[in-house]
Amino acid sequence: MKKPCVLVTNDDGITAPGLIALEKILSPFCDCRVICPITECSSVGQSVTLRKHIEVFKFQRPGTRTAYGIDGTPADCVKFAIAELFGSRKPVLAVSGINHGANTGISVYYSGTIAGAREALIGGIPSVAFSVTSHQPKNFVFAANIVKQIVMNCLKHGLPQNTLLNVNIPALSASKIKGIKVLPQADSKFVEKFVKEGEEPGKLKYRLTGEIFINDRSIETDEEALKKGWVAVTPLQLDLTRYDFMKELSKRLETGKKRHNKKLFQKG
Amino acid sequence: MKKPCVLVTNDDGITAPGLIALEKILSPFCDCRVICPITECSSVGQSVTLRKHIEVFKFQRPGTRTAYGIDGTPADCVKFAIAELFGSRKPVLAVSGINHGANTGISVYYSGTIAGAREALIGGIPSVAFSVTSHQPKNFVFAANIVKQIVMNCLKHGLPQNTLLNVNIPALSASKIKGIKVLPQADSKFVEKFVKEGEEPGKLKYRLTGEIFINDRSIETDEEALKKGWVAVTPLQLDLTRYDFMKELSKRLETGKKRHNKKLFQKG
Repeated sequence: MKKPCVLVTNDDGITAPGLIALEKILSPFCDCRVICPITECSSVGQSVTLRKHIEVFKFQRPGTRTAYGIDGTPADCVKFAIAELFGSRKPVLAVSGINHGANTGISVYYSGTIAGAREALIGGIPSVAFSVTSHQPKNFVFAANIVKQIVMNCLKHGLPQNTLLNVNIPALSASKIKGIKVLPQADSKFVEKFVKEGEEPGKLKYRLTGEIFINDRSIETDEEALKKGWVAVTPLQLDLTRYDFMKELSKRLETGKKRHNKKLFQKG
Repeated sequence: MKKPCVLVTNDDGITAPGLIALEKILSPFCDCRVICPITECSSVGQSVTLRKHIEVFKFQRPGTRTAYGIDGTPADCVKFAIAELFGSRKPVLAVSGINHGANTGISVYYSGTIAGAREALIGGIPSVAFSVTSHQPKNFVFAANIVKQIVMNCLKHGLPQNTLLNVNIPALSASKIKGIKVLPQADSKFVEKFVKEGEEPGKLKYRLTGEIFINDRSIETDEEALKKGWVAVTPLQLDLTRYDFMKELSKRLETGKKRHNKKLFQKG
C-alpha cells in the first residue's frame, strides 16, 4: 500500500534540526514532501511575500525526496506547494515543525510554525503544528512517539473541517512527560521590553524582547499544562467571528435596513 | 473636557493617504497618537521584528502632534507604543487604517491593518480596523461619516473584552452606500498564481498573485455584503480554540490521566 502523502514545513528553516527530526519520525509511514523557508523566520505570523520575488531552490539530502527551500515565509512555502508542487496527488495532511520553542496562548498569531499549518488548512489540507519548549534541544527523541501517535491518529480519523491541531511538547525525557491533554489556548499576551541599543540624529534603535503573561488563570490552558510537564494539544479554528456579540452590535450600528426592507417589499 | 486618547496606526505606512484621512476624521473629537511603519507593509500579518534592530523616527506634520515612524511592522509599532509612548494616560481606543484595499474573510490573518488593531487588543486596548475596497481612492470623503459614527459608538459604549471590529467600506459615493451590516467573516481562501519571472541555475523566481475565493455561500458574509454596497462590520475575537471539538479530541488523544489521578490520590 502506498504511504499517505504529507506536506512537511516549518519556520526555523530547511536546515533546522527540528525539521530533520520530523522527517525522520514521519518517513517510515508517510511520503514526506518537504518545503520550508531557506532561513529562520520565527514570529513572521501569516506574513506573505508580495513586494519582491519568491525564489525557489531544490535541496537533495541523502535518502530523502527532493526538498524545496523558499526565500520567503512559511505561508509562501505552503501556498507555493499547493499551487505548483502537487499534481493529482494532494497531501492528505500537513505537518509543521518541530519548532524550537513553545507556541502556546497568544503565540497562535505570531508563530510561523502555526502559520505554516494554518496556510495548509486554508488551502484545504488538514494540519498539525508541533513545537517543543526548548530552543536548543539536544535531540528530539523525547518527542518522537508523541508526534508519531498524533499524526497517525489524524491520518486514521481525520480532523473536522477548518480545524488544525496545535501541539506543544515539554522538553523532558519521555518518561517524565505526564501524558497528553486537550486544552484551550491561554488568554495571554507578551509583555515587551524595548532595549535601547543605539541613537543617531532623529532615530533611535531598539531590540525587542518579551515574555508571555497569562491574563486569566481561572481555567487550565495550554501554557500552564505544558509548564507542568503535559503535552498540550489545542484544536484551532479559522473563523474569528465573535458571534455572541453580533446581535448587540447590530442594534448599535446597523443602518439602511428600512430602505433595504422597503426595496424587498417593492420587489415582492 | 479632554479629548479621549486614541492610538492610530496602519500598514500602508506613515505617508499613506488613508492614514492622513483617518487622522483628519478623528482629530476633532480624539487626541490622536500616530505610530506607523515607515514603509508600506501590507500582508505582513502579526509579524514581529526579532532578528534586527527596530528603528524609531519622529515625524512632525503641521498642525498635528508628533507622529512616530518605525522601521518595522504594524505589530512592532503598537508594541512599541504600548511599552514606551504612553505614561499614565493609556489610549482608550486604537484605530488602524484606513487601509487601501478590502480586508474581508480569510484576510483577517494576512492583513497588517487588522494585525495593528489586534496587537492593541492583545495589549488591552479595544480597537477598530478600517479598510476601503479601492487600492487608490481619490479621497476618503465617502468613508468619513462611517468612520466617525463607528469610532464615536465605540468610545461611548466600549467593546466587550478581547473583541475588535473589522470594518470594510465600499469605495462608492456616500449616497450609494446602502448602510451598515454586522456580518460574520467569510469562509474563504486566496487562490494563488505563481508567475514565473526568471530562472537561474538551481533557482526559480516567481511573483505571487491571488484572488479571494468564497468556500461557503450559504450565509451572507462580510465579503458578499461589501460587494453589494454595504459597509461590513465583523466583530473578531482573539481565542481560536475550537471548543466544540475538544471532547472528541480528548477521547482520541488523551493519555496519562490514570497515572495523574493515582499521584493525586497518593498526595491526598
